[in-house]
Amino acid sequence: MLKIGALEKLVQELAKLPGVGPKTAQRYAYSILKKSPRLTQDLSNALLQVQAEVHECPECFNYTDLSVCRYCTQPNRNESLLCVVEEPSDILRIESSGAFKGRYHVLHGVISPLEGIFPNQIKASELFAKVDAGLNGLRAKIDEVILALDSDIEGDATALYLAQHLKQKSVRLSRLAHGVPIGGDLDYVDERTMSRALENRVDV
Amino acid sequence: MLKIGALEKLVQELAKLPGVGPKTAQRYAYSILKKSPRLTQDLSNALLQVQAEVHECPECFNYTDLSVCRYCTQPNRNESLLCVVEEPSDILRIESSGAFKGRYHVLHGVISPLEGIFPNQIKASELFAKVDAGLNGLRAKIDEVILALDSDIEGDATALYLAQHLKQKSVRLSRLAHGVPIGGDLDYVDERTMSRALENRVDV
Repeated sequence: MLKIGALEKLVQELAKLPGVGPKTAQRYAYSILKKSPRLTQDLSNALLQVQAEVHECPECFNYTDLSVCRYCTQPNRNESLLCVVEEPSDILRIESSGAFKGRYHVLHGVISPLEGIFPNQIKASELFAKVDAGLNGLRAKIDEVILALDSDIEGDATALYLAQHLKQKSVRLSRLAHGVPIGGDLDYVDERTMSRALENRVDV
Repeated sequence: MLKIGALEKLVQELAKLPGVGPKTAQRYAYSILKKSPRLTQDLSNALLQVQAEVHECPECFNYTDLSVCRYCTQPNRNESLLCVVEEPSDILRIESSGAFKGRYHVLHGVISPLEGIFPNQIKASELFAKVDAGLNGLRAKIDEVILALDSDIEGDATALYLAQHLKQKSVRLSRLAHGVPIGGDLDYVDERTMSRALENRVDV
């Protein structure tokens, strides 16, 4: 289509980003060409630097450029609370609320047999080992595991799988509350969310 | 926010792409981290390769990896027809229609005093020189200049500026037709387009 090899290759690579189709990739590629060579160099360097410096934390599997990530080493966090999330980006959402001061565990995916993702491909056994280590006194005891997963089919299936394994251990299990979003218009709340919000209504 | 230097830098660089805000840039950065190192390397290489190989054609200012671009060297194109576009990407839209077989001239921008873009910052004088060279027998004579610019304020201002300079030379000037898009529902046609479509109605 473009008949310029290097440009076509760049469009192809950019189209691998999430939600980017060939048309958007083309737009990005042309805007990159329009920018000064300095900026293209910066983006290319940033990519290589991220690849070289950022890796998974051996404790919680969050991304970090340290040997152990900052959430695992911060001293004022509650070691007995463990929040399980699907992706590292979910930690940002939870941290920005300021309502959680425990530790994290990143699964790096959810169980989805249709996409060929089974329990052994996510960090589930690592989670069980962490809880066991706490019970055996090899690390601080974990009193509660909060499952902060998406409330879709894959998230629910994963929560069910984790719950089945964790309920045999003496640990409290919880999940995020469902309800009407703050500041949200009731007109736009779907029926499942509304039914949950009614079920879990709170006394005032 | 992310507290990982390399990741923050990558988000910053990605947010310079058109229409990409900090949230989308973050999503792209996390997806890049999730990909294999090979893919990150490929994207980085593609960026550097584009920067090294792709440049403006000295004839029409389209992007090319050849010394003169393929549209300027194709022998079966009508030398006397010159289509003026704002950006190289516009050429793709026109070429995909298959309805134009002349030469191109890319302005690389439109006049926009509010954004500090004046006639001397676009390839306008190069266009006038090209038309003059044709009239003086220094190159094939240009009989018609088609202004294929966006129909917004900046596009119209640029068309007006170019027309003022070109109408003194013996060259036919035209612009793209406005009207109802093919396959478009009349319900969604705005009033200005509708009034143009009525004005320029065609006998059947």
